[in-house]
Amino acid sequence: MLYFEDFTPGRRFDYRPLLMQAADMITFASEFDPQPMHLDEEAGKRSILGGLSASGWHTSAVGMRMMIDAFLGNSSSQGSPGIDFMDWKKPVLAGDVLGGFSIVLAARQSKSKPDIGIVKFRNEISNQSGEPMAISECSVLFRSRQNEPQQ
Amino acid sequence: MLYFEDFTPGRRFDYRPLLMQAADMITFASEFDPQPMHLDEEAGKRSILGGLSASGWHTSAVGMRMMIDAFLGNSSSQGSPGIDFMDWKKPVLAGDVLGGFSIVLAARQSKSKPDIGIVKFRNEISNQSGEPMAISECSVLFRSRQNEPQQ
Repeated sequence: MLYFEDFTPGRRFDYRPLLMQAADMITFASEFDPQPMHLDEEAGKRSILGGLSASGWHTSAVGMRMMIDAFLGNSSSQGSPGIDFMDWKKPVLAGDVLGGFSIVLAARQSKSKPDIGIVKFRNEISNQSGEPMAISECSVLFRSRQNEPQQ
Repeated sequence: MLYFEDFTPGRRFDYRPLLMQAADMITFASEFDPQPMHLDEEAGKRSILGGLSASGWHTSAVGMRMMIDAFLGNSSSQGSPGIDFMDWKKPVLAGDVLGGFSIVLAARQSKSKPDIGIVKFRNEISNQSGEPMAISECSVLFRSRQNEPQQ
């Protein structure tokens, strides 16, 4: 179990590879981002994205899932106040295999909540060729280990 | 149909209200953000969020859908290069009714693609009490009207 104290600057967490399937891309887009290039291969080819492409929000949500599986799911995470920025560098196309990593940029204790620490991460999602697809930075709140009951 | 030229600074697009249901929040979180406070009412109450709360990514995706329904779905949108920032101001709880608006901050023609314009929006998602829940700014690419075939 990872607590605030474990997130030291420079520590890196690698993601497990994840296949982006056309059906999942269309399901997500149908609910949240029904633009033609996210719903249909032919419309995608006619668009500047070059093919059926994932909604940027889908890629971002998949990135969240990769963070959960890589480290957040086994941590004292208390959620996030937001995203500093999210750059969608290239279109994620059906069949792409996403991977990448999160790296700790900074960590500090909360001033208002002494049992909480705030950790800033840089998150890089890349495709099977190592090309950067989405880059973001965000902060996550974690409980400190010192206040946990002894195991 | 809205083209680049229609997105003049100050123009505002109001969202239709949208109910955040516990079942949808749990479905989204199970796939993308399976943290206890997004999956279970009791775990939510024990967390600093105060109840079963939507993943910030779910709130963001719902915000995208509200933008689609308010104006993007009837536009020449070509997608977005990313999000300048996304602040999750307060936890979105089951039963909240989200609304809000997008407002045009700036608009300029692309230097590299003369038939494309870049529009910067501020997006505010609020709850049924008018409290701000999520604030973001992002850019969206639109085709210009002048290059469209005459109707």
